[in-house]
Formats: sequence, C-alpha cells, structure tokens
Amino acid sequence: MITRMSTLFLRTLREDPADAEVPSHQLLVRAGYIRRAAPGIYSWLPLGYTVLRNVERIVREEMDAMGAQEVHFPALLPREPYEATGRWTEYGDNLFRLKDRKGGDYLLGPTHEEMFTLLVKDIVSSYKGLPLSIYQIQTKYRDEARPRAGILRGREFVMKDSYSFDIDDAGLEASYLAHRAAYIRIFDRLGLKYVIVSAMSGAMGGSASEEFLADSEVGEDTYVRSAGGYAANVEAVRTPPAAEVDSSGTPAAHVEDTPDTPTIDTLVAVANRLHPRAGAAWTAADTLKNVIVTLRHPDGTREPLAIGLPGDREVDMKRLEAAISPAEVDAFTEDDFRKVPALVKGYIGPGVLGETKATGIRYLLDPRVARGSAWVTGADAPGKHVFDLVHGRDFEADGVLDVAEIREGDPAPDGSGPLSLARGIEMGHIFQLGRKYADALGLQVLDQNGKLVTVTMGSYGVGVSRAVAAVAENSHDDKGLIWPRAVAPYQVHLVIAGKGEQITGAAEDLATALGIAGISVLLDDRNVSPGIKFADAELLGMPTIVVVGRGVADGVIEVRDRATGEKSEVALAEAAHTVAQLAR
Amino acid sequence: MITRMSTLFLRTLREDPADAEVPSHQLLVRAGYIRRAAPGIYSWLPLGYTVLRNVERIVREEMDAMGAQEVHFPALLPREPYEATGRWTEYGDNLFRLKDRKGGDYLLGPTHEEMFTLLVKDIVSSYKGLPLSIYQIQTKYRDEARPRAGILRGREFVMKDSYSFDIDDAGLEASYLAHRAAYIRIFDRLGLKYVIVSAMSGAMGGSASEEFLADSEVGEDTYVRSAGGYAANVEAVRTPPAAEVDSSGTPAAHVEDTPDTPTIDTLVAVANRLHPRAGAAWTAADTLKNVIVTLRHPDGTREPLAIGLPGDREVDMKRLEAAISPAEVDAFTEDDFRKVPALVKGYIGPGVLGETKATGIRYLLDPRVARGSAWVTGADAPGKHVFDLVHGRDFEADGVLDVAEIREGDPAPDGSGPLSLARGIEMGHIFQLGRKYADALGLQVLDQNGKLVTVTMGSYGVGVSRAVAAVAENSHDDKGLIWPRAVAPYQVHLVIAGKGEQITGAAEDLATALGIAGISVLLDDRNVSPGIKFADAELLGMPTIVVVGRGVADGVIEVRDRATGEKSEVALAEAAHTVAQLAR
Repeated sequence: MITRMSTLFLRTLREDPADAEVPSHQLLVRAGYIRRAAPGIYSWLPLGYTVLRNVERIVREEMDAMGAQEVHFPALLPREPYEATGRWTEYGDNLFRLKDRKGGDYLLGPTHEEMFTLLVKDIVSSYKGLPLSIYQIQTKYRDEARPRAGILRGREFVMKDSYSFDIDDAGLEASYLAHRAAYIRIFDRLGLKYVIVSAMSGAMGGSASEEFLADSEVGEDTYVRSAGGYAANVEAVRTPPAAEVDSSGTPAAHVEDTPDTPTIDTLVAVANRLHPRAGAAWTAADTLKNVIVTLRHPDGTREPLAIGLPGDREVDMKRLEAAISPAEVDAFTEDDFRKVPALVKGYIGPGVLGETKATGIRYLLDPRVARGSAWVTGADAPGKHVFDLVHGRDFEADGVLDVAEIREGDPAPDGSGPLSLARGIEMGHIFQLGRKYADALGLQVLDQNGKLVTVTMGSYGVGVSRAVAAVAENSHDDKGLIWPRAVAPYQVHLVIAGKGEQITGAAEDLATALGIAGISVLLDDRNVSPGIKFADAELLGMPTIVVVGRGVADGVIEVRDRATGEKSEVALAEAAHTVAQLAR
Repeated sequence: MITRMSTLFLRTLREDPADAEVPSHQLLVRAGYIRRAAPGIYSWLPLGYTVLRNVERIVREEMDAMGAQEVHFPALLPREPYEATGRWTEYGDNLFRLKDRKGGDYLLGPTHEEMFTLLVKDIVSSYKGLPLSIYQIQTKYRDEARPRAGILRGREFVMKDSYSFDIDDAGLEASYLAHRAAYIRIFDRLGLKYVIVSAMSGAMGGSASEEFLADSEVGEDTYVRSAGGYAANVEAVRTPPAAEVDSSGTPAAHVEDTPDTPTIDTLVAVANRLHPRAGAAWTAADTLKNVIVTLRHPDGTREPLAIGLPGDREVDMKRLEAAISPAEVDAFTEDDFRKVPALVKGYIGPGVLGETKATGIRYLLDPRVARGSAWVTGADAPGKHVFDLVHGRDFEADGVLDVAEIREGDPAPDGSGPLSLARGIEMGHIFQLGRKYADALGLQVLDQNGKLVTVTMGSYGVGVSRAVAAVAENSHDDKGLIWPRAVAPYQVHLVIAGKGEQITGAAEDLATALGIAGISVLLDDRNVSPGIKFADAELLGMPTIVVVGRGVADGVIEVRDRATGEKSEVALAEAAHTVAQLAR
C-alpha cells in the first residue's frame, strides 16, 4: 500500500498544543494522529487510527490464539443489570447515565461484567459449555473527574475486556493463567517495557489480581518492587502487622504541656526542648498522628473515620481510596470539627477516638503501631500531649487500616528486601472475580452430577487506545515519535528529497516495488523543502526512513533507522530488496 | 481456521423468539447470531460478529479503493457544534442527550456532519487539501420511537458514514459519483438485490440525493418505479401540479343538505341519492377532503395545518413527515377541535381554512387540485356540503403540499409510464449536502487565487449492522439462513455424521487439510444426533455443508450447497481439494 502525503489528511504542528503536558499527548497531536473533540474525548485521524487498529489486531490475534471467542456488546446499556449488582450506584459520578425518550434509565458501559454474565446465563446451561472465555474490543465510557494526558486517561476509550467462566476454582486459576500468558505476548509484541504487579481489585470485588504496568514517569500508578522479585501496586502492598513489644518497662502515661504544637514538626521540637528523652531525641516516628476523614458511601451517607499512624508517615490517598472503596473520601471540614467539640484540632488523641469513646468515631490503626509500643500523641486539650501512651495498655482501636504511604526502602512484605518505587501506566488488569456477579445475577449450570452450581468468573482488561499512548510514551525522542514495527502506521517513510525526473522517477519506482513486496509506504511527494520533509518524517515516526535525493545520480539512496538514527547508503539497484528486508 | 461446535459459544433455538416478526430477526436470534440487550439494542455473538466484521471489511476495502481515508470520531459528542447547526434541537426526541459530571451537555452521535466539518476546518486550509473524502465505520445512536425487526432498525447500530469536501460544485458532483460507484460495488459484493432511487434528504438539507434500497417485503421504505426507468422513494415523488381547467361552464357554488355524512363514503352515497349528477355518478375523486394535523416544531411550538386533497386519496404519513421535517406530526385532537369552534368535524371546508379565514389555520392543497376544478366539500355546518366549489374562483389556499399517497398506476413524474410500488430496506444514502454545514461552521479554504471560498460537501452512509439483517432477509429459506460466501462466518460447515474412529478421523483430517488450504471450517464435533446437526447446519447457513458419515467406509463424503440444496458425493481422497475449490 502506498499513501501519498500530498493527499493524506494530515497537518503537523511545530508547537506543542497548549493543553498537552506529557510527551505522548504532545507528539500524537503535533504529528496529526489525534485531535481533541471534548475534554477527555478524542478523534482519530488516519495515521492514529491505523496505529489503533494495529494494536487491536495484535490483541485480537492473541485472544483468539488462547481460544477466547469474540463477541460485541452494546455500549448503551439498560440500568437493571447494574442495579442488580449495585454498580449503578457504586460507580458514582464516574458513570455516564441518561434517559431514553420513554424515561427509561440507561448508562454508557464502563465495563461489562453484568452483560457477559447474563449472556452466558442465556447460552450456557451445563458444565459442557465450560470453560469459556469470551471477549470484546469495544468503546467504553467513564466520566473521569480528571481526564488527562490525551488518550492516556480519556472519558471515551477503547478497551479489550474479557471474562472467563469456569465450574470450579481450579478452572478459574487455569483461565487466569491463560490470560496472563496472552497478556505477556500482547505487551511483548507491542514492544512495551512493563512489569506485572500484584493489585487490589478495588470496586470490582474478587481475590487474585495483577496489573501490567508500562514503565513510565508519566504513569498514574505507583508501584514498588524489591530486588528479590516482589512487585505490587502501592494500593496492593500489605504491611505486615508489627510484632507485639514488651511494655513492662514503660512508665505510666503522663500528660504534658506542649504549647503551640498543632503539627508533628512543632510537637517534636517542643518535646525535645521541654520533655527531653534520655538516650535519644524524640523524632516524628515516636509520635502517633490521628487523621480524620469523611467517608461518603454509595448510598450517600457520610461517616467520619479516624486513622492513627506514626507521625513520620502520611496517609496515601490512593491507598486509602482503594481500601475503603466503594466508599469515597471527603475532607473532614472545619464545619465537621465544630459539630464534634470533643475533637481538639491539632491535639486529637486516642482518648476520644473509637466507637465506644466520646466522639464515637471509628478509629483504625496503621499496622506499624505494635501492641505494647509507646507513643507521644494528642491529649485532646489545646497545647497538651500525652507521653508513654501504650497501645493495648492505655488505648485500643477498632481495627487496622493499612493506608500509610509506602516509602523507598520500606521492607517488602514477603521479606525479599527493601522496596524501590516507580511509576507506570496501567495497560492490563487481570483478576479472579469469583462468584460475585454469578451470585448476583443467578448464573448457575448443571455439573457432571446434574447438580446446579454457581459459575466462577475472571475479568481481564487491556487498554487498547491507552496502549497507543503508552507505546508513544515508551518510544519517542525530542524529534518525534518512534513506532515499533508491529504498530507503525507505515513500514517505510519514503522522502523525495530533490527535484527532477531522475529523482522523482527513482522514488516512484522504489515505492511501487516496495508496494508489490507487501511493504506499506508513506511517500512524501509534497512540493515542500527537504528540511520540512525530514522534520515531518522524524515527527511521524515510521521505523524506516528512505531518502531518495541527489545520490540517485550516483546510483545510491539513503536508509535511516528512526530508532537508532543509523544511516546507510544502499545501491539503487538493490534498494527495493534491501529496504523490504529491513522493513519487515 | 477451524472452530469446533463443541466449544463454540452458541445456543440455537427451535422456536422463533416472541418479539420477532420478520424472518431475519427470527433467524438471527434462533441461530445464535444476536441477542437482545434492550429495546432496539443488540449484542453480537461470535457468529454474528464475524458476519458484521465481514461486512465492515467489504465496506472498508471499497472506501479505501475509492481513495477515501479512514478516521474515527467519538460517539460521545459535545453539544456546541450541533447547537451551531440547529440539529441539537431539530433532532427532537431521536437524539440521546446526557450531562457529564460537571453538568455539560453531550449527545450520542446520530451522524457526524458537524464533527467532520470542524475537523476538516482544523486540518485543511487550502484548495491543495481538496478534494477530500474521509469516512468512519462507527457505532451510532438514535432513540427511535419504534425500534423494530432486531438489527434492521436499532437504537445502537453500526454505520459507515463518509463526507466529501470540494472546492466547487463540479468537484462535489465527481465525489458524489465516486461514492455512488463504490456503493454499487459494496452492495454487489454483499449479494444484495437492490435498487437506486431518488430520495428526499429530509432533515439533512441539501439537494441531489439517492438511496440504495434492498428489495424486501419487510422493508420500511416504499418506493416506486416505472417501466421507463424512473425510481424514487415515495417521499421523493413530486406530483406535477395539475393544469388549470376551464371553469366557465361550472355553475355557482351551492350549499346542499347532506345529513349524516361525516366520511367520504357516506358523502358520496348521499350525494348520489339526494343530489345526483347528470352523466356520471359522484365518486370520492369528486370530493375535496380537508385533513387537520398538528405540527410540532423543534422549538416545541405547535401549529395546526389543514391539507386539502381529493377524497379518494389518503395523506401518506411518511411523505408528510418528510415534507414538514424537522417539524413532527401530531394528531389534531378532540381537545384541539373544541378550541376552534369554526371547525365542524366531518364538514370542514375551505370557507374557514387559510391564514386569512375564520380559523386562521394554514391551508395547503394537493397538486392534483387544479385551478378551475370544481369540488364537493364541507360547508362548515353539520350535515351540509357545498357543491361546485371552484378552486381559484370560490376559494384559495396558502400553498401546495404534495403528501397524498402514491398509488400503483399513478403516472411517473417524468412521463416514463405508470408507477408500480415496492418495499425496500434503506441500505445506503448518498447526497449532496452543499454548503449548509460549511456555512454554519465556517469551513472556508483559500482557492487558487488566494481567495477564501466556502467548501461544498457531500454526505454518504451505509448501514453496516443493518446490512447483516438485509442480507439475511434477502437470503434465507424456511430452514434457516443462507449466507453469501462474501460474508459467511465460515466457508464450510463440516458435520461429523456418525461414530467411530474411521469417520471421526476422516472428518478431522479433512478439517485440517481445509484449514491449511486457508478455508475456514465450522466443525460439528458435538455428541448429538446427525438430525440435530443437519438442522443446525441449515439454520446457521454456511454456504457449503460437508457431511462425513457412513460413506467414509466406501471412500466418499457428501457435499451440500446450502443455497441450491444440491448434494454430490465426493471421493474422500479428493475431498480437501474439491471442497476448497467450491468454498472459495
């Protein structure tokens, strides 16, 4: 296939668009691959759509190869199935909802567990129809609060979602592993650098769950890994509870004046000045910080929650959100404080926290707060803190909540060494849903003994349009995009760099020969300067750039590798053969 | 590719689904190609999705071959561009509208003129970028008042829409003809019997317009054709105004008692009894019937409209809807009658109709009502009609409205002979939009003289998901579907009709050999009776059915042509070769 740039529906831009902050967004817009239609909603131009379809093809081939069967659901869906599973409400503002002309409630599908479950219930009635994996590549909708980075996090996007259906847990495990293997092949073929991490399943319910994260500084997901092979999404890191310590030598708790110490920093300074400790100075790690937030439940009810954690750590909002989902987190406001006078802002302590205490506010402790450990913490009076307050001796909490930030150097939960932090783009997510949806929607089949059993499910997603951005993010330089051959819109970018019949004729002949050899060619036949053509070739990012110019007089052309920048001269007589070999 | 029915995600039904009235709907559901998800909204199962993708491929190949470039727009669109062209309102209840979390207005795209126009405005600034044809194959949404017949008229459906952009009318004409030629190739490849008819462009605006209608008794479009080659959608038939006749011999109008004659039939009977005409009996064609409807305009305002037409014709609601679009038609209710006492139901006459008359109701006449012609019509009093009322002498109207039914035998407007009526499914629509959208959205480019000129556009659609139903409608029998080779989900349906290693081995070997030869095979390896397998094979409709059964002992298999029913025995040794030849 040969496409001429003189007729290609394309306009490249010299400047980055004003609303684009990350390289993939800047370059995909500048190179004329995508255009913004509304916040988080993009149109695909010819080059961009070709890349998207190439990604789709790779995903489809690998899903077919693992025996999954392709179906296609509507994006416009009735409310009822989502009501049955509670997700009509749980999705909150992230769901696009609408009414039809008769007032019926509909939604734009964010993910299709319900529909797949119901369809399988309609089609399959016996264990003989299982195991089954079905998938679709489809446009999905989420009304993100913060759409960002172009197609990296859009409100309309293309996803491959698949679902496995098995008669028992062993079957689910096998389906899960088959998807895992297919995903490895997909992301390998896309040329992505990625890591597989343990993940929380968030609002989806279920147990085993892993994410495929493409390494990227602009990624929204922070993950941790250890030298010993541990890797997890920060939301999934489970801090082991600290072992109980002996408190028999700890003096009785005593309240001290600590004037003007509403923050941990001021408290540590004052404690060291007014109440110095023998042996070692007080540090933030000796203090117990109590943070109050408001949980907003899907049914709209609000509930305050107190979190106690070592003063040298912050609450990680993403970990908190994941932990309390489907509830959402709101601030505990000044107004809220006024309603609970027992809470003395800056001096809140365990003395008033807990379901049985003065405030009645549920109080959950970071797992690092060992039973028997002693703390400096608020005394529930302005300018006062209590010292040597021992967990289990002087106070109790209502439970544990592991939502403190994970820090570089924290120990891996599996003992495989210190953790390091990195950022990634979530490209795939696989998890074992179990029977949540099958239970809610009544998906049962007859087993080999003629007994009705509930089916167990897995749910698996690949961000298809996001992959276009992730590949661009993964593979570009300051001049432009650098497409891996597997997804490049054209295999060869052929630049006519000069005028005259000899050069033009040689270029056209070469393009024709490459076309016949099955190589797709973007032929720059425009009447603009070679400089503009070279700049556009580098911006557009085809893997092989062929320059047909003055060298033709000497019987040579130039072949450039976009990724390495290597240039080589090739004899015109052998050009078609050599370029076809390279470009394949 | 070989797919085993033992693992295929499929359940065939013996009974027609309760909600299905037309054969394609019944068969596509029974054969497990589609399933209803909500009214007018369908899910595609593996076999159905394969057919859909085959249709898409044919459409894409022909669009690419004509030089159109593929893009892809969002389905979720902001209100503003549709507001600018007035279609946000004009679409009325047919548009799915919704709000995002910030309260912004969005719609689900029913067609994308605005978005294409704006994108071309962004990308193309000079005549050098034209002519340009761009297209997308995309999911579209219309909140149909009466979704029907499965995927024949759905609320979520797949369409190919393309748009041409030209600098002048000659260019538009060329782009239009290029699309017309591509559509002929597309529908020929789909194996459809179809006719190309002149069409109204309805709400779209614009001038030249044709529809591609697949011949079908279940089609919603009625069209007419003459032996002389005239063909038009009934909405598009323009009745030539009747020539003025000499009324000098017509007596003065006279009101007569016609008791109990609220209908044309009763009027004709009473007129012949009480007021017989010399020479010829009164017929319905001598009466002038006045029909009152209510127009509902896009802005919500309502307006009564009176239509005068010969009493032997009815108003054709589809012609009326097309003529008054973007307004819609409501009934003129009993309540409405009470508000206009001058209207005497059953006896309404021109005496009170017209913008200057007692009712003030706009009054439009059928073009058959010649100036000078005399009529029997209502005298605006109970039980009274006026005779010899002459158009142009005794009454005037506010204009002409050509919305009476077209009848078998009516003359073709171009004089090419009497019309015959037929029904069809609208498969494609092409038309010359002109500058309506370019004007509304400011799409101008520099011409060769450096002057800004407004671009002229064409708009072209193919119903892609509808084509699946149309092909099924076009090609089935009482046993099931009969797919043309170009769109069949599999080329060969291979039935293992018997037990034992010899038969199974021969079938598996044949399937493998066909797979290697590039033939797609649906292998019925289920443990069910041959009778069930044969019935399913006929229901599913692959073009070639191969039966491997007891004949294997004699070295033969049977090959059946699904369309013709022809059966032939083929030597097992030559089976792979022979079947591959047939199936290609």
